[in-house]
Amino acid sequence: MKISELGEFGLIDIIHTVNERFSNSEQPSWQRLLLGIGDDAAAWQSNNHIQLATTDSLVQDVHFDLGTITWEELGWKALAVNLSDIAAMGGEPRYALVSLSCPGDIEVDSISTFCHSMASLGAEFGTAIVGGNLAAGPSLVITVTVLGCSKGNALLKRSTATTGEQIAVTGHLGLSSAGLEMLRQAIRLDAETSAMLRKAHMQPVPRIREGQTLVESGVTTAIDISDGLIADLDHVCEASMVSARVEIDRVPIHRAVRTHFADHVELALFGGEDYELLFTGDSSIVNRAREALSCPVTVIGNIVEQGGAPNRVTLVDSRGDVVPHARKGWEHFTNEITGAKVL
Amino acid sequence: MKISELGEFGLIDIIHTVNERFSNSEQPSWQRLLLGIGDDAAAWQSNNHIQLATTDSLVQDVHFDLGTITWEELGWKALAVNLSDIAAMGGEPRYALVSLSCPGDIEVDSISTFCHSMASLGAEFGTAIVGGNLAAGPSLVITVTVLGCSKGNALLKRSTATTGEQIAVTGHLGLSSAGLEMLRQAIRLDAETSAMLRKAHMQPVPRIREGQTLVESGVTTAIDISDGLIADLDHVCEASMVSARVEIDRVPIHRAVRTHFADHVELALFGGEDYELLFTGDSSIVNRAREALSCPVTVIGNIVEQGGAPNRVTLVDSRGDVVPHARKGWEHFTNEITGAKVL
Repeated sequence: MKISELGEFGLIDIIHTVNERFSNSEQPSWQRLLLGIGDDAAAWQSNNHIQLATTDSLVQDVHFDLGTITWEELGWKALAVNLSDIAAMGGEPRYALVSLSCPGDIEVDSISTFCHSMASLGAEFGTAIVGGNLAAGPSLVITVTVLGCSKGNALLKRSTATTGEQIAVTGHLGLSSAGLEMLRQAIRLDAETSAMLRKAHMQPVPRIREGQTLVESGVTTAIDISDGLIADLDHVCEASMVSARVEIDRVPIHRAVRTHFADHVELALFGGEDYELLFTGDSSIVNRAREALSCPVTVIGNIVEQGGAPNRVTLVDSRGDVVPHARKGWEHFTNEITGAKVL
Repeated sequence: MKISELGEFGLIDIIHTVNERFSNSEQPSWQRLLLGIGDDAAAWQSNNHIQLATTDSLVQDVHFDLGTITWEELGWKALAVNLSDIAAMGGEPRYALVSLSCPGDIEVDSISTFCHSMASLGAEFGTAIVGGNLAAGPSLVITVTVLGCSKGNALLKRSTATTGEQIAVTGHLGLSSAGLEMLRQAIRLDAETSAMLRKAHMQPVPRIREGQTLVESGVTTAIDISDGLIADLDHVCEASMVSARVEIDRVPIHRAVRTHFADHVELALFGGEDYELLFTGDSSIVNRAREALSCPVTVIGNIVEQGGAPNRVTLVDSRGDVVPHARKGWEHFTNEITGAKVL
């Protein structure tokens, strides 16, 4: 079997299997480990809080196009997608390490701009760039690792959603993938909308403080929306062994996306890279979170019991009728958003 | 200017400059930071010990050739080179994260073997694989990040070498680059020598326990030999603002290298990837370390005052005459060992 048939979650499965064989409960590393591979970040217990670590790569012509993205945007995005994973744990990012593999003919000024932008985003969230590595390579691959810690001793995980809970999301969805569609298809929009969509795609703002507020509000389950709303909710369902029911009409699609894109529902449900937080909780906890957060919070559905349906996430329209859909979001080896259709 | 003209240490300089602008002494990340980019690992103070983090990449056709290396060897090596950086800090490795960018047609079995080998090496040194990421890419790029901690509250740094100290190395040098030369030039040697040289290049054993023993013996300055003996000693000289004098005849070249390779001196001085530890200390400390270590320890020269010489590291022959040499070792953008000649 080829790795393209396995996809990203296959790697997680391989490492799970391997770890079962090699984990050693007499060693402090394993004794203290709270979450290994498979959540937004790894987590282990230190003396006063929980340590977090996450890593993510951006690959040229897979995740970005140097003809479209600026070096400033690229430096921002490479760090932001990792900070978002710390946000999805309710943590505080502290340190980042960046590895670049790139052709030798890239300008030093470009790398300098890249690092500057990364450090400025880091500084905004108290994150210092403390390590790095530069290697020659045929195309640009950027791998960032972010280390952080919990505030207090609580975390947001994927595995704690329970039946009856509400499903809520921060902010609005679809902006990032609408931005990508705008750039790819050279769609002309007014300057303000165009700039907003571009920024949503190129320079997402990680919901760091919002993640911490969710923890303080008593939320225990969250994920950041990177692969797409439905794909990421599916990850929560899988980890929590539950199903979900989402009312399409309640999904907070940004007005600009609704206005300018005929496929706005698909963009919001399957587009991904919004880096908003999806969380679950009973209504009192969701209400508490809504009051504490300064961004919009929208309830889009409920966690339901595990059903026999092929999709863990069921979509329903305003009449309550089930809308069939393919489950997948971002496919890591076809580099396409598959199943991005409400059938 | 192109990035190939700048090299790896240019990235360190860029990040240094950027950090000077963005570091914020009111934030805990910067308050606790002991070592940023530029040593073998970043280090920051936690409550009971010092936390360490390091990252390193292996790039296909730059650092390895899939026609020569096995997946088992590759998994081992990708982790080992990072563990070696923790060894060079005298630390204890705890957690590793691995990011793979690779073509979709790689076999799942290969990745499985790779992960298995990585985890088995990790287990040997108490290191759990806790995170990972898989992305499509045109060729294989492996980035590993290792997190660790100090034993007690002391570290081995590059910046603390002082005039008059002895320079010592663990083990023997030249095996790894002799192994590479053997493979590249299809040199036929007896089975035992061939296997030993291959293993030295493909599956180096990080000197984790030895690094910790150095700390316990009172050593404060060390580096692992990855770029090459002279290049890495040069890094120590630069960080410590001193010069060094190395007696070529005292360099512990492995007998197999001396026997089978005419260029054995060059291999040992400039070849790199030995992953032995180079350390400095006054004679009583070096003697204490030698007694405590179970591997060979060889004094190869002394730290001397900063001279006006173009090379920080001066090589001398058995008569005490200076042997001119080009300073550099592994060049990260030409993918060649440059200046690898005693002139």
